[in-house]
Amino acid sequence: MDKIPVGILGATGAVGQKLIALLAGHPWFEVCEVVASDRGVGQEYGAYVSWHEAQVIPDRVTKLRLKSCKEPLNSRLLFSGLTAEVAGPVEAAYAAAGHIVVSNAKNHRLEDKVPLIIPEINSEHLELITPETRKKGYIVTNPNCVVVMLALALAPIYRHFGLEKVMVTTMQAISGAGYPGVASLDIIGNVLPHIIGEEEKIAPETKKILGELKNNAVKFADFKLSASCNRVPVREGHLLNVALQCGRRVTRAEMIAAWREFGSQKLALPSAPREVVRFIDQPLRPQPSLDLMAGNGMTVTIGNLRACEVLDWKFAVFGHNTIRGAAGAAILNAEALVAAGWLGERR
Amino acid sequence: MDKIPVGILGATGAVGQKLIALLAGHPWFEVCEVVASDRGVGQEYGAYVSWHEAQVIPDRVTKLRLKSCKEPLNSRLLFSGLTAEVAGPVEAAYAAAGHIVVSNAKNHRLEDKVPLIIPEINSEHLELITPETRKKGYIVTNPNCVVVMLALALAPIYRHFGLEKVMVTTMQAISGAGYPGVASLDIIGNVLPHIIGEEEKIAPETKKILGELKNNAVKFADFKLSASCNRVPVREGHLLNVALQCGRRVTRAEMIAAWREFGSQKLALPSAPREVVRFIDQPLRPQPSLDLMAGNGMTVTIGNLRACEVLDWKFAVFGHNTIRGAAGAAILNAEALVAAGWLGERR
Amino acid sequence: MDKIPVGILGATGAVGQKLIALLAGHPWFEVCEVVASDRGVGQEYGAYVSWHEAQVIPDRVTKLRLKSCKEPLNSRLLFSGLTAEVAGPVEAAYAAAGHIVVSNAKNHRLEDKVPLIIPEINSEHLELITPETRKKGYIVTNPNCVVVMLALALAPIYRHFGLEKVMVTTMQAISGAGYPGVASLDIIGNVLPHIIGEEEKIAPETKKILGELKNNAVKFADFKLSASCNRVPVREGHLLNVALQCGRRVTRAEMIAAWREFGSQKLALPSAPREVVRFIDQPLRPQPSLDLMAGNGMTVTIGNLRACEVLDWKFAVFGHNTIRGAAGAAILNAEALVAAGWLGERR
Amino acid sequence: MDKIPVGILGATGAVGQKLIALLAGHPWFEVCEVVASDRGVGQEYGAYVSWHEAQVIPDRVTKLRLKSCKEPLNSRLLFSGLTAEVAGPVEAAYAAAGHIVVSNAKNHRLEDKVPLIIPEINSEHLELITPETRKKGYIVTNPNCVVVMLALALAPIYRHFGLEKVMVTTMQAISGAGYPGVASLDIIGNVLPHIIGEEEKIAPETKKILGELKNNAVKFADFKLSASCNRVPVREGHLLNVALQCGRRVTRAEMIAAWREFGSQKLALPSAPREVVRFIDQPLRPQPSLDLMAGNGMTVTIGNLRACEVLDWKFAVFGHNTIRGAAGAAILNAEALVAAGWLGERR
Repeated sequence: MDKIPVGILGATGAVGQKLIALLAGHPWFEVCEVVASDRGVGQEYGAYVSWHEAQVIPDRVTKLRLKSCKEPLNSRLLFSGLTAEVAGPVEAAYAAAGHIVVSNAKNHRLEDKVPLIIPEINSEHLELITPETRKKGYIVTNPNCVVVMLALALAPIYRHFGLEKVMVTTMQAISGAGYPGVASLDIIGNVLPHIIGEEEKIAPETKKILGELKNNAVKFADFKLSASCNRVPVREGHLLNVALQCGRRVTRAEMIAAWREFGSQKLALPSAPREVVRFIDQPLRPQPSLDLMAGNGMTVTIGNLRACEVLDWKFAVFGHNTIRGAAGAAILNAEALVAAGWLGERR
Repeated sequence: MDKIPVGILGATGAVGQKLIALLAGHPWFEVCEVVASDRGVGQEYGAYVSWHEAQVIPDRVTKLRLKSCKEPLNSRLLFSGLTAEVAGPVEAAYAAAGHIVVSNAKNHRLEDKVPLIIPEINSEHLELITPETRKKGYIVTNPNCVVVMLALALAPIYRHFGLEKVMVTTMQAISGAGYPGVASLDIIGNVLPHIIGEEEKIAPETKKILGELKNNAVKFADFKLSASCNRVPVREGHLLNVALQCGRRVTRAEMIAAWREFGSQKLALPSAPREVVRFIDQPLRPQPSLDLMAGNGMTVTIGNLRACEVLDWKFAVFGHNTIRGAAGAAILNAEALVAAGWLGERR
Repeated sequence: MDKIPVGILGATGAVGQKLIALLAGHPWFEVCEVVASDRGVGQEYGAYVSWHEAQVIPDRVTKLRLKSCKEPLNSRLLFSGLTAEVAGPVEAAYAAAGHIVVSNAKNHRLEDKVPLIIPEINSEHLELITPETRKKGYIVTNPNCVVVMLALALAPIYRHFGLEKVMVTTMQAISGAGYPGVASLDIIGNVLPHIIGEEEKIAPETKKILGELKNNAVKFADFKLSASCNRVPVREGHLLNVALQCGRRVTRAEMIAAWREFGSQKLALPSAPREVVRFIDQPLRPQPSLDLMAGNGMTVTIGNLRACEVLDWKFAVFGHNTIRGAAGAAILNAEALVAAGWLGERR
Repeated sequence: MDKIPVGILGATGAVGQKLIALLAGHPWFEVCEVVASDRGVGQEYGAYVSWHEAQVIPDRVTKLRLKSCKEPLNSRLLFSGLTAEVAGPVEAAYAAAGHIVVSNAKNHRLEDKVPLIIPEINSEHLELITPETRKKGYIVTNPNCVVVMLALALAPIYRHFGLEKVMVTTMQAISGAGYPGVASLDIIGNVLPHIIGEEEKIAPETKKILGELKNNAVKFADFKLSASCNRVPVREGHLLNVALQCGRRVTRAEMIAAWREFGSQKLALPSAPREVVRFIDQPLRPQPSLDLMAGNGMTVTIGNLRACEVLDWKFAVFGHNTIRGAAGAAILNAEALVAAGWLGERR
């Protein structure tokens, strides 16, 4: 076998299922272990899981027996789709046991020595993992779903023009809450004006990602960011209304040019989209129903750019929350580790 | 008959239907004339209209024959639910012919001599209509649906603490677009990041309403306001995320006290709600499914108050867009005219 | 106090909340005890309950302390909104202790000596409760939500023309599953082709209601009935497609006349609608958004009558599942008991 | 160029757009002409069309100039996504002019000499086109979207066991009505109990497809079929509840075996799915959100099989209405013509 064997922590949950679905047919990775924190241990994955992906369970995975997240695993590389309730100690334990844990959970994201990575923005933050640590185990994280989209939209603006203030209002899909997640009576024909625990993640994670690596530490970016998070009756895809004030006066053309230049970078990674961000110069874009699958769910779409009466510019940002914002983000991070040569055994 | 006879301009449209539904059983007004701009003239209202209200057509109205908006009318008081495409000259002509036109259309709202009224905020602006004009005809308007909710939430803040900057992001219901309005393929499971023609109304109308009457003119309130408008798959009720910076530092308790004091005013008008604005101190309120019919659709609900990292405070505002934001707003304005004694013939 | 004091079993659940909302301002009944099967015992209702009704909790009820369903109660009349998991023994125990239990739960509906009642159809089945039992305690039930609507549509057809075969396909609202009930990911933009445990209730309950009381027993009606139940993304209101074959050839006019005659009966009960069933001779009716609140949610609407190529006739039936189909049905049953003089202490 | 050039009639409509989207990258066909019945003639397709597919317009097509459906065309093979209002004479004229018109429109489906084809069921009906006609032009049609799914589910049952009676109740997606189609106020949180003009197509088209070719004519299948059609708030995919009575007693295992055998046939055509019909032995399947893209939208899924109290068996059927039910059906028919050698110039 040529491919790198990987294990999935939290394999029966929503993120775990999406990881398994996206890894079907992956050119570098092969799911060889499925790990759950719960009662299904010992059972066949396909028989035990309550599968919610439209794609069928990959044949290979369906026959795997669920392992416990307390037992030793064979795969050096582990993807973690664990929920925040359990991810903290489980991920730490596997890292301590020598595994590379590529995690979507929030628990370790803001720790000093844990890289919080979006490869198109800050892959140099991987250097937080020292060469000695690389030989042992460690954790690499991707940010909250909203932060992925927001940071990708802000990165070129921040670098070219600086940022003073950012206000973001989100309209987030129900899939972000996992399964069973939001009760239908709470969301059909309704909007929830708050998502518990969400707003407070957005500023620090965004500032860490846009931060600078200095003396083996990340100096967080320095600007003000206020987030208001709403849940809307959409299945997949988070829409953001963003307003911002740059460090200097910026023209509309400069904004667009910055996105277009940044968007056209192309990482040589299997899951990297052809366009990282895509700017559509129309007021009615982006939209979930039209832009969800841009770049196979890995492209972030920006549109409706117009002047803001309070800050400088306002615009809409949209991305696939369970692909670009979660499982796809983790896979892209793992691909970046392979590309950096940190997994040695690459094909 | 004791009641004041009224005519409905645009009687077959969405706002016209809501006016007729809300006026069924009204203690002061009785619908005696229904007027359409289109082909149905001469037909019975009930036979011609494509009725979309859940409530059945009032018996009295169903038998009325549709009149043309080019013919003379008997009722001095006319409610206008005309669309912006036709409201301008039609309303002006009826005012010139001696009618009092209480309009929901945008066309005349910002004209110097046309009062733009929310009775709980600025009924003194009615004085724009001089005593001489009162004897003839004139137009009185209510604002855009978003502005009604926003202005009611801002009014006590503006008066007590001053306002420097306001940012509002809306999530608006489909009923705001009338019928047939938004195509279902554009909104089911989707969000539209823009509403054409909507954002530009919000700042000037809000500033006129909060403005000061001086020398028989309205001096617009002076602060910065930026609006971002989205359409969401909700049938009725607009939800707003508002962030603002006051003229001075304000505590959370002061904000709430200002709303509670303002909210408890009670106009002696049939359609005035017991609470004008209602503050609920919970992060997950207001919500369309729980707060739509507060005060029979005339109360605006505020909640989720928290500090803003960019401006001072942020919170959510919600109201019924076709009642408080349109037909009910017009009826309340007409009631204010009666209460002011401007219609003389009151029972 | 003039009103009859009542207790609510399962007061914190979805049906319990709807019972409390509908009983606010009821002319005959007053909620004096709220009973839960769970952890909230001893707490104030308003503080403990996770309230989901649009209407606020009635002032009087909000201060009541939750009692346990194992403790003695003072109110002779108890409404049961208990779930099927617990209703069986709890209701039986209270009946044995001398209470009149008016239940919406399925557990006792098909027992020989328990009346299953829709007052407009079979109030004579109350005679299953013998005069001796009346002095003690007993259980009276209303049927499953689909059965209420179906039985009301079938009753006049069955009586006038006989019934051979009935096929019903339902499209049921999410509120029928209670709270949290259906996960939003399972139903937004989706249809579920089955509702577990639902189809098997429909035939026996319908046949018991349409059955004949003979020798103090109900002889079930004799026809074939097949039900297919689907869940659709609608908040409130079940829509049924019904096809049937009568005992003899029946004309369209006869069908309509039977519904109109039956529909116009008016029980002298506070919750009885002016029209029991309402036939609308249009192919696009009934609809949830237009017909939900007919008769304050107590009228069942029928429409789209047309010939069937396999059976005789097909048509659509619609009703409010949590009012006519649950809480309102129970209240109407209790009102029927009062009207029959079985509660003595009537005001 | 190796590929067969094709033209699209009605290229700007919903079916036309789906045809263009599905034909992007097709191994046999290449869209070379786009034809509209309306004002856009002469303009570039990409500039004129109001595109609603999630996939972007194929580069090649975006630059094509719209032709009029009154002008001569170069492509022998034309796909017609025309609406019923215009399809009749336009398709007839192009056929008379020597074109092969593969049409999704209803207009010619029931004509004696026009094949109504589902290749997996009745490709022999193509023989209605005589060898002489083949040299000239002719029309080949696919059925109504509901009929495609129903006929695929019924075909193996009919052939193995005979059919006496079929009752089908549909829950149809909004995309079936095209764009703008259904107004959002008519369908969000609602169900429409009727689809105008739909029910009457279902019986004759199904019976023609299942009919027998004799003496160069189709003898329609002989059984009773009653259809009830509803519109539900789902974007894509029609769900059917079917009940049927066979020509003889059939066991559950026989039903399933018939579907599995039929489902496993594999036409050597590019758009043919690996499974024509897929039976899932679960009561909660099929569902739009899980089964829409089975076989890239070309597989019809069947589930929830259970005994029927009135007929013999009942079950649910689901398929992608704009792929298997429209554009994909037409493409499959064209592929069948190529495979039969009727287009000669195959690569």
